[in-house]
Amino acid sequence: MREVVAGVDIGGTNTVFGLVDMDGMILSEGKLSTVAYPKVEDFVAALSSSVNELLKGQKDLVLRAMGIGAPNANYHKGTIELAPNLAWKGVVPLADLMTKEINLPVSMTNDANAAAMGERRFGAAKYIRDFIILTLGTGLGSGIIINGELVYGHTGFAGELGHMTIVKDGRECGCGRKGCLETYASATGLVRTVSCLLSIRREESPLRDIPPSELTSRKVAEAALNNDAIALEAFDYTARMLALGIVNSIIFSSPKAIFLFGGLAQAGDLLFKPVRKYVDEMVQPIFRGTVEILPSGIQEANAAVLGAAALAWKELSK
Amino acid sequence: MREVVAGVDIGGTNTVFGLVDMDGMILSEGKLSTVAYPKVEDFVAALSSSVNELLKGQKDLVLRAMGIGAPNANYHKGTIELAPNLAWKGVVPLADLMTKEINLPVSMTNDANAAAMGERRFGAAKYIRDFIILTLGTGLGSGIIINGELVYGHTGFAGELGHMTIVKDGRECGCGRKGCLETYASATGLVRTVSCLLSIRREESPLRDIPPSELTSRKVAEAALNNDAIALEAFDYTARMLALGIVNSIIFSSPKAIFLFGGLAQAGDLLFKPVRKYVDEMVQPIFRGTVEILPSGIQEANAAVLGAAALAWKELSK
Repeated sequence: MREVVAGVDIGGTNTVFGLVDMDGMILSEGKLSTVAYPKVEDFVAALSSSVNELLKGQKDLVLRAMGIGAPNANYHKGTIELAPNLAWKGVVPLADLMTKEINLPVSMTNDANAAAMGERRFGAAKYIRDFIILTLGTGLGSGIIINGELVYGHTGFAGELGHMTIVKDGRECGCGRKGCLETYASATGLVRTVSCLLSIRREESPLRDIPPSELTSRKVAEAALNNDAIALEAFDYTARMLALGIVNSIIFSSPKAIFLFGGLAQAGDLLFKPVRKYVDEMVQPIFRGTVEILPSGIQEANAAVLGAAALAWKELSK
Repeated sequence: MREVVAGVDIGGTNTVFGLVDMDGMILSEGKLSTVAYPKVEDFVAALSSSVNELLKGQKDLVLRAMGIGAPNANYHKGTIELAPNLAWKGVVPLADLMTKEINLPVSMTNDANAAAMGERRFGAAKYIRDFIILTLGTGLGSGIIINGELVYGHTGFAGELGHMTIVKDGRECGCGRKGCLETYASATGLVRTVSCLLSIRREESPLRDIPPSELTSRKVAEAALNNDAIALEAFDYTARMLALGIVNSIIFSSPKAIFLFGGLAQAGDLLFKPVRKYVDEMVQPIFRGTVEILPSGIQEANAAVLGAAALAWKELSK
């Protein structure tokens, strides 16, 4: 008899899920098309039967709970609220619907918060009580752990560091405002910086031969590794903006570590070296040398499922 | 028999202290010159005997603990570290010294953190689990409460929102950096803004007749109440910068309330009205309408002693 939880990651296109034991071992995994279920009730039924299939495929497993990472998830209410990339409109009481379906505790938070819980339970933050994880993908998500606990805040939506205003009247953000951190410090932000630099600088660059719509942070990283001046400057600028966001987070909660995760963090030293340098330069003297900037200890491919599973285990232990 | 704690506020010039019961009633108060004791051991002895004097003056009191608010206080270590305005140099283990002297638990944090604890225990935040208090004086101090607990962070120095960078290469700050929130949003920041506006605008203003070194936030407030254009614009600008700092704090911890406290907050509507307007304009849509901007519920004169006492009571309840 082995106890497991279901870790579920709901994305705009697909939903991935897995059965995860207490040690963070993923025993079995599955995938479901999110877009195939425009009615949330149908999605709930499909997810439930898919998880049951996984359980049948393994011997002696007992499902104890489900954790869900989803966009715009409200931890306090167990709802998904006004998620622009999902077909389910308005405020969707997904945790309640799921609990009724599987008759087990279901908890829910957004993917960056889930990543923080995964890092704390199964990753590089097992012994770190105060840290922040920044997920650098299309946008910049964040999960904040203080005193070993995730910060949800009054609304359940705390930890939106991607929307820290760092440049007055800066780049337009998807949130309708301007100058948000994620418009500079994310995979998309890096690409926007390249476009800007191509307009300012005159150097030749292979990046000039790629249509802007096809430019990715990986291609910029490849160019940077080939010593392309534009790409290198773009990484340096991105790192400086990210460092500014990090420095403004350090004065808030004084973490022991900042973990960088996601597509842009894969660039390794290209990003980490200048970020560390700029944080050290810009941080308030009282915090200098007190914070490590580290890569996540969890494999990108498993992070979403492990994070959601960590949430489920955490709730069970309460 | 009535149980009390000693609430102590150490300032650069004077130290004030009082005996405070569980309901936040100050039964007796005293004052000590901080500068008269350049050796910390002498200060400890003097404070101890002064508190004993207070106790003797009241019947049937039992002292249970001491809480101290002090500049650059490290809660975790019970030390005062590199405080520029105190004669005691280096890292001073004040809590330990005091504990040995009075043989009771002694805890310590900085004055803004103490203000937050006072607000939570005795003030307007009794039923608010997630809030931030901003003390707007010479600088901008802050205390952050999440889930009912003060945020100390890994170092014990968390909650330095006055040093959030809000203007790149902006005004010089006492911390050695530039563009910190407190260089704009504090009593001193308001005065700096007036100086700047006097150089830019041509309007007549009674503020032109006051030497910059004698200009205070109160005088600016008086001019504003007389509809002086420069003073009104200075308050508007200060409110806008403060709102930016508040908005960047809301995305972090999603508080239910932000309390404004201290000299500048005394300006009332002159400050609160534009701050509320700008916060509403600038805040990320997901948090719009979720945060109240409120005056502190504690009288300025009692805040320091009550805050330190609240810390002591909190520690006793652990």
